[in-house]
Amino acid sequence: MKTKEEIRSMIEELSKKDTSRMYLNDFFHTWKESDDELAAVFEVAEILRAMRENNISTKVFDSGLGISVFRDNSTRTRFSFASACNLLGLEVQDLDEKVSQIAHGETVRETANMVSFMADVIGIRDDMYIGKGHTYMKTVADSVEEGYKDGVLEQRPTIVNLQCDIDHPTQTMADALHVINHFGGVENLKGKKIAMTWAYSPSYGKPLSVPQGIIGLFTRFGMEVVLAHPEGYEIMKDVEDVAAENAKKAGGSFRKVNTMEEAFKDADIVYPKSWAPYAVMEERTKLVGEGRFDELKDLEKRCLENNAKFKDWTCTEELMKTTKNGKALYMHCLPADITGLSCKEGEVEQSVFDRYLVPLYKEASYKPYIIAAMIFLSKFSNPSAKLAEVLADSKPRVK
Amino acid sequence: MKTKEEIRSMIEELSKKDTSRMYLNDFFHTWKESDDELAAVFEVAEILRAMRENNISTKVFDSGLGISVFRDNSTRTRFSFASACNLLGLEVQDLDEKVSQIAHGETVRETANMVSFMADVIGIRDDMYIGKGHTYMKTVADSVEEGYKDGVLEQRPTIVNLQCDIDHPTQTMADALHVINHFGGVENLKGKKIAMTWAYSPSYGKPLSVPQGIIGLFTRFGMEVVLAHPEGYEIMKDVEDVAAENAKKAGGSFRKVNTMEEAFKDADIVYPKSWAPYAVMEERTKLVGEGRFDELKDLEKRCLENNAKFKDWTCTEELMKTTKNGKALYMHCLPADITGLSCKEGEVEQSVFDRYLVPLYKEASYKPYIIAAMIFLSKFSNPSAKLAEVLADSKPRVK
Amino acid sequence: MKTKEEIRSMIEELSKKDTSRMYLNDFFHTWKESDDELAAVFEVAEILRAMRENNISTKVFDSGLGISVFRDNSTRTRFSFASACNLLGLEVQDLDEKVSQIAHGETVRETANMVSFMADVIGIRDDMYIGKGHTYMKTVADSVEEGYKDGVLEQRPTIVNLQCDIDHPTQTMADALHVINHFGGVENLKGKKIAMTWAYSPSYGKPLSVPQGIIGLFTRFGMEVVLAHPEGYEIMKDVEDVAAENAKKAGGSFRKVNTMEEAFKDADIVYPKSWAPYAVMEERTKLVGEGRFDELKDLEKRCLENNAKFKDWTCTEELMKTTKNGKALYMHCLPADITGLSCKEGEVEQSVFDRYLVPLYKEASYKPYIIAAMIFLSKFSNPSAKLAEVLADSKPRVK
Repeated sequence: MKTKEEIRSMIEELSKKDTSRMYLNDFFHTWKESDDELAAVFEVAEILRAMRENNISTKVFDSGLGISVFRDNSTRTRFSFASACNLLGLEVQDLDEKVSQIAHGETVRETANMVSFMADVIGIRDDMYIGKGHTYMKTVADSVEEGYKDGVLEQRPTIVNLQCDIDHPTQTMADALHVINHFGGVENLKGKKIAMTWAYSPSYGKPLSVPQGIIGLFTRFGMEVVLAHPEGYEIMKDVEDVAAENAKKAGGSFRKVNTMEEAFKDADIVYPKSWAPYAVMEERTKLVGEGRFDELKDLEKRCLENNAKFKDWTCTEELMKTTKNGKALYMHCLPADITGLSCKEGEVEQSVFDRYLVPLYKEASYKPYIIAAMIFLSKFSNPSAKLAEVLADSKPRVK
Repeated sequence: MKTKEEIRSMIEELSKKDTSRMYLNDFFHTWKESDDELAAVFEVAEILRAMRENNISTKVFDSGLGISVFRDNSTRTRFSFASACNLLGLEVQDLDEKVSQIAHGETVRETANMVSFMADVIGIRDDMYIGKGHTYMKTVADSVEEGYKDGVLEQRPTIVNLQCDIDHPTQTMADALHVINHFGGVENLKGKKIAMTWAYSPSYGKPLSVPQGIIGLFTRFGMEVVLAHPEGYEIMKDVEDVAAENAKKAGGSFRKVNTMEEAFKDADIVYPKSWAPYAVMEERTKLVGEGRFDELKDLEKRCLENNAKFKDWTCTEELMKTTKNGKALYMHCLPADITGLSCKEGEVEQSVFDRYLVPLYKEASYKPYIIAAMIFLSKFSNPSAKLAEVLADSKPRVK
Repeated sequence: MKTKEEIRSMIEELSKKDTSRMYLNDFFHTWKESDDELAAVFEVAEILRAMRENNISTKVFDSGLGISVFRDNSTRTRFSFASACNLLGLEVQDLDEKVSQIAHGETVRETANMVSFMADVIGIRDDMYIGKGHTYMKTVADSVEEGYKDGVLEQRPTIVNLQCDIDHPTQTMADALHVINHFGGVENLKGKKIAMTWAYSPSYGKPLSVPQGIIGLFTRFGMEVVLAHPEGYEIMKDVEDVAAENAKKAGGSFRKVNTMEEAFKDADIVYPKSWAPYAVMEERTKLVGEGRFDELKDLEKRCLENNAKFKDWTCTEELMKTTKNGKALYMHCLPADITGLSCKEGEVEQSVFDRYLVPLYKEASYKPYIIAAMIFLSKFSNPSAKLAEVLADSKPRVK
């Protein structure tokens, strides 16, 4: 547990980062954020966590709402968002939208304003439809921006991307903070190899936002980022370009390989995870958009058949042995498809998964703090001063 | 944004109103409230809003629950109620009741007590069944009144009518506050003409509570209130009588006309909106009450066919031109059925609707404050003294 | 209403109880708790209630979550849990689990950790499957205990049993506190006769946890506890053993009789309530576990047919006359199946039920405070000191 003195140093560190552009702004993709901004999110997340460990209340809102919009099912992210809001003093209100509905601009604008009269933050998960999720979030953001300017809203709610079709920043930032702590500092990530690889799963249609988010973020730290997937399971070209550019700037590398074996070889970190082929996601979006729901079943069937050709893309003990000293850090956003446990054949062997249970849970434990940090940084123009104030108060969370 | 000095004047103004009868009481229909009581709701709503704009926390409850009972679907009113509760410090708990169920007295009494042990307010929407909605609310009110007297409940929760079969006071009071601000004061409403007219919609079974609520409330301000609808779309006779009496007392008028054209002519405000014929609503109530659910489809079909005869009842640009200076204030409780946008043919042309987007959103923005004001006035015997206290404290909402 | 002086005495009384084992612990079955621990729950419940009556805020948490997991439908217990959390300052988040799903260890462990990063309490209702409910709760408890030790969780959430297959402690403790107050003190319960009897209901599959909980708890007070049910409606043998042992220790008695008549004879308290035969519950668990959902309908049919043989097991006015002075206290956990009101033939005659309406509601009113007391005692190592602090502060709940 960190001491108050250590927390003070962290706040001091935070004060050196330029976060001015985050104020009253949204968090969509990590690659739209500067290095300072990402570092500030990590720092604030750690400060909030350290304060909570010290039983210091971080309720900076005396009232206010956090709206959650889940256009895809979720338990973990839902609770992470609720936890983040609660930590800061916001009460969560769920906006139920039909899962299968692709929203239209005008309706989105109206609803966004109608639910936001007292909203300080809107967390959105919309990851199912290629070309739609981010667009939806952007429309909500523009709508409340306009509503605020027009005097409809008293405050400008921040949008936090809880997973879209392109990026999943609250997940990958939590992943990164886990890795940073695991390796004892962001500076230690330089040159480390991470294998982001596709893995077989008996389910279909998993979003592409995790692999995209991982290569888009981890290339920022000077790491050797390797992406592997079977033919046909390509991710968005744009994000690969982002990764390549990041790597160049940060002095690391980004490359694609064709086998899990090559990716795992000497890796410091492995992230084997299933996702749907981009083309399938596009077709699904088209079918849903045109109301051709009856054809979805057929698409699913074809997709599962295709998946089944790649059952050997699975994280085995044998493969783990080929990683750096046979001890790469295994990562997953959870829930994983575990062979012999949650399914017959899946992404990972049970013995591998079980060995990494505690690290996996710790990985997940950062998410509420990452979300809270994103909200915090969008709400205070001088976040370090505000945190210093909270620390000085040191109001107990539990009496 | 109002200054603290201005807020102080508003509180001073509030102190002149007699709100004693509102204390520990419910809010069912605007016409059951005195002029002072309505004025107090407007005043408190404006004070709460001004405080929030000044970042002053108005959490007068340190803990306590706000129960919401939605016997009809709702997003806007649900969020308005949640916002109002949050503004005052109450946590919302939803009581899910089957939409198609018409509750029986004994069950209502039991449930009302069981959910109210720590409830300070119960917000209810029950607008679907003629003769049932208000009755249900009254039963809940009587039940918790009795529970309080019997020592079952530590406090007497207030019932706020979030829309019943007769009135929709949180909507119409928000509408009125919007109009008051739009025209620069309630005194400026005298003599202004408002056209409350039926409009075509491809949906069926919309409640009558908005047109009834509008004519029941706007006749209080000395306005020229005109109601127009096709034959067969009559509203409750009792409420028309209320409107007529109000008009006489307030020195305005209430009359019915047979065309949208006549209603719109020189109107200062137009409120074109669809509703179901009273007779259809009655039949539906009967069918549901007798469990004849299979006949509901047929009723819907007949009703939609009848609606379709009146597709020319729609708010066009042409009609708008006939209003006062061609610039009547267009109002709607939202969501509207917009021709060419949300439906093929609907209540209003898109260009008209779009031109009034900001006013429409502002209209809606008053609702959370109106609800909060209703709760506030039922909870404090000396509301102006309490608000003065809150202002003196000036605890920041956001640190 | 109690005075502050009286509250001070109650806190003084509490300070004499040894509650050390409750700190950071869970509440599963009343018979796992010592006499001191049960007495402490009653005392804290009464103190919290007295404080609320005195408008003293008992929010000991400035932030934090209360997770509710309802694997069976519930309105009353849901609201009681929400009320308890709100009373102490925790915000409720519902974890929706499929009702028909029997969870597996690994999944439970993961989910338990994933939702608990900021959870101070987890309230669980899982009463439908014999041998599963308590096991599930225990798995959750072990999971978060481990998570806490592993540094995954910053705090160790307490599990509160909101009804399992074995016991329903929040119900029976509320029942007991009601009885204690009704008879003017726990010492007055000595020698009083309580009849826990089966009663006919047209529904099937009601849990056994109430009769089991009642005989397991009320035998602690030196009472004459009588259990009656038709042949085939046996409850768990283990709990009968607990009851017998309790009775011996406390100087009361526990016996089983074969008719309602014998049970009611001279009883001071009667608790007529339906439950399912143990064998049926076991078969249902088996069918669900094996995914044989289609056979459930048949089981239900057979069960209802068997129930129908015992329609004369109903609480009539005539039977009530045979109780002590014809005035036994009638109890029920609600909702009851009332003959001629909620069903054709049920557990109790309407005139009996109606006469006891206020006592029944009061009985229920203790539940939120009992739950809050259980949470409180698990969170503070020195509960009386903490309550003295809260009393000294006397922060108003409503300004």
